[in-house]
Amino acid sequence: MKPVLVEILAIGDELLYGQTQDTNSHWISIELDKVGYKVVRRTTIGDREDQILTAFTEAEQRADIVLITGGLGPTSDDLTKPCLAKYFNCKLAIHEEALAEVTAFFKSRGRELTEVNRQQAALPVCCTKITNAIGTAPGMWFEKNGKVFVSMPGVPHEMKKMMLDVIIPKLRATFQAPALYHQMIRTIGIGESFLADKISDWEKSLPNNIKLAYLPGLGEVKLRLTGTGDNMDTLKEEINAWVKKLQPLASDYIYGYGEDPLEVVIGNTLREKRLKLSIAESCTGGYLSHLITSVPGSSAYYLGSMIPYDYEIKMRQLGVRPETLEKYGAVSEPTIIEMANIVRSKFNADIGVATSGIAGPGGATPDKPVGTVWIAYSDKHKTVTKLLKLTQDRQLNIRYSATAVLNLIRVNLPA
Amino acid sequence: MKPVLVEILAIGDELLYGQTQDTNSHWISIELDKVGYKVVRRTTIGDREDQILTAFTEAEQRADIVLITGGLGPTSDDLTKPCLAKYFNCKLAIHEEALAEVTAFFKSRGRELTEVNRQQAALPVCCTKITNAIGTAPGMWFEKNGKVFVSMPGVPHEMKKMMLDVIIPKLRATFQAPALYHQMIRTIGIGESFLADKISDWEKSLPNNIKLAYLPGLGEVKLRLTGTGDNMDTLKEEINAWVKKLQPLASDYIYGYGEDPLEVVIGNTLREKRLKLSIAESCTGGYLSHLITSVPGSSAYYLGSMIPYDYEIKMRQLGVRPETLEKYGAVSEPTIIEMANIVRSKFNADIGVATSGIAGPGGATPDKPVGTVWIAYSDKHKTVTKLLKLTQDRQLNIRYSATAVLNLIRVNLPA
Repeated sequence: MKPVLVEILAIGDELLYGQTQDTNSHWISIELDKVGYKVVRRTTIGDREDQILTAFTEAEQRADIVLITGGLGPTSDDLTKPCLAKYFNCKLAIHEEALAEVTAFFKSRGRELTEVNRQQAALPVCCTKITNAIGTAPGMWFEKNGKVFVSMPGVPHEMKKMMLDVIIPKLRATFQAPALYHQMIRTIGIGESFLADKISDWEKSLPNNIKLAYLPGLGEVKLRLTGTGDNMDTLKEEINAWVKKLQPLASDYIYGYGEDPLEVVIGNTLREKRLKLSIAESCTGGYLSHLITSVPGSSAYYLGSMIPYDYEIKMRQLGVRPETLEKYGAVSEPTIIEMANIVRSKFNADIGVATSGIAGPGGATPDKPVGTVWIAYSDKHKTVTKLLKLTQDRQLNIRYSATAVLNLIRVNLPA
Repeated sequence: MKPVLVEILAIGDELLYGQTQDTNSHWISIELDKVGYKVVRRTTIGDREDQILTAFTEAEQRADIVLITGGLGPTSDDLTKPCLAKYFNCKLAIHEEALAEVTAFFKSRGRELTEVNRQQAALPVCCTKITNAIGTAPGMWFEKNGKVFVSMPGVPHEMKKMMLDVIIPKLRATFQAPALYHQMIRTIGIGESFLADKISDWEKSLPNNIKLAYLPGLGEVKLRLTGTGDNMDTLKEEINAWVKKLQPLASDYIYGYGEDPLEVVIGNTLREKRLKLSIAESCTGGYLSHLITSVPGSSAYYLGSMIPYDYEIKMRQLGVRPETLEKYGAVSEPTIIEMANIVRSKFNADIGVATSGIAGPGGATPDKPVGTVWIAYSDKHKTVTKLLKLTQDRQLNIRYSATAVLNLIRVNLPA
């Protein structure tokens, strides 16, 4: 079976100028991958007719499906709709059903329809309208010479709902995909090249239809096996067998398989072991708690946090002893030990973790440069600390530290 | 003066398959915009020689500068380097200085150089090496027919350091840019189409060399004016005059100009007014504190937070009265008022803010569906609450709620 090839086009000057980040193309990639379609190119272009029409022509030559986001707003800088009308050689006209929908949308919010909004219901007459259940700009579906073009709003949650509810089901009814299977192996605590050395014999013995990729991230390296074949069941079995052979070569570092990040894996373990977590985070400023609570259902194992950012709050609210702070400073091993132990006992939790460091750019001292971060883990049997020497970048230091705490939890959880 | 045109190429199957998000292209766009270069296209392609070579050829035809990220790793799926050697028709050979650098890099970490790592010092002989100060893969600079190609590692912090330290200065020495000036006007609390109605006369009167774009975001709409001209000073004056005319038309909604997001604007106000902020956040789970502390220097006005995620912790640690929780529930106006007031007084702060809601997907009741969120602001003069009715999406609810609290602070800060 031939692979189904897709191109993704994101339209908007604000993307090229870097004033809005295009998160849509990434999300669409993930969703298409799940259904076995192959994204062969993603392109971002500006709000200019010539650029848009050229991109349409190029994409049509390479792909079976062209998915377009952006440029559908009610304002005059939005050109996608007139360009589509021109490309498919048909007129723009008010679509009665679309007009009813946009009118109802405004009515439900107690607002009058303006003329600008009315124009959102004008669509190329040769397209099939796709309802926007949570916004005002409808999507559009075009077919030409066996190729499909779909245009969607750039607002991420509107695009996502449209993709999941309408477009992906409709694409799957139109294009059948060959078997394409990915298996992710997630590791933490080892660098890419050292991991590559450890598994090089295994890698060399992989068959031609299975490809390995190294995906380094913040403190972690993901390995991705991608296989193609005619039969999905056979392919899955084949890939799973290769994963099994890999396991003993990197068992200390593998924390999971698939899409679940470390906070989800740890959450599952805490839930299974019926352990409750509490956090005292200073330099990470809420980011560690955010990672934990970004996981649905985290209230089953996460009790809460203190963020004692201020020196006084570390004493008065959390309860770190003034002697400890005065003698060793807030960024020190004795302080981090107290922070983890205190938050565990105060919150009546099984596990307490803590962070304290110099995220930067300010706050450094000669013996504690920016990037100096202490982290700690505490349960009723032990307290474990770790000193991190990180970067000059505040955001990176916050993220690295939070990830390091998650790994500290992973390796120290009671069996 | 002719504009300097740039294309950005991101290489990697993991990007197309959606397993890694390409944040590099966005960051590069921002930096190039600052120096007046015009990004005309961004393209993402896979780890395949034919795709890479085609993309090189196409980009060279359209742009003066081609910036490439990714595919430089030490592992066998990385093809950018051999493709560049082929495209520029020259051999790969060990670059002695690069070898010394990668050797020193490993030595500084107490590790031996493996053969895989040694190959990272092999470069096309026709390129100029760019030192990677914080990683192992050097960058490469190629010139051909007045066009420049630059290849960089895909690891974001390595790429960024290389761009800022070496590549942008070198590009600016090579290509002079015409005046291109953006001014962002940031609004919150009004929808895109309503804002467009309010300012339509002003918009229609803009001259040809100044373009307006609407950039809707999470609860906010940014307006971007982009002007081109021969003289930067004249252009800036011209754009500033248009901004001044806009101001009275949308003064209730404009919270700032330029690149600073709401958390930075609020931070500046708190610092100027010498006010201290404390937070009790439940459903936002640390994200609100993270927004506040993502701003360098936030320790000047932010004291700390309690995240009383668990019901018991709301009582025992924060101190919400059991009667309030029992009678009204955790997601209620009486509870949110207590949370904001208590955290303000406990932390000895000037301002206390709080969140409590059903982020989802679990936790809903018939009268409190997913997306029900109470937020509150408290200072010594007043307590203000707001009920939000948000979406079914957990991540979106967390982000919307945090933004709504920031806006609540903005509009309620004592004069």
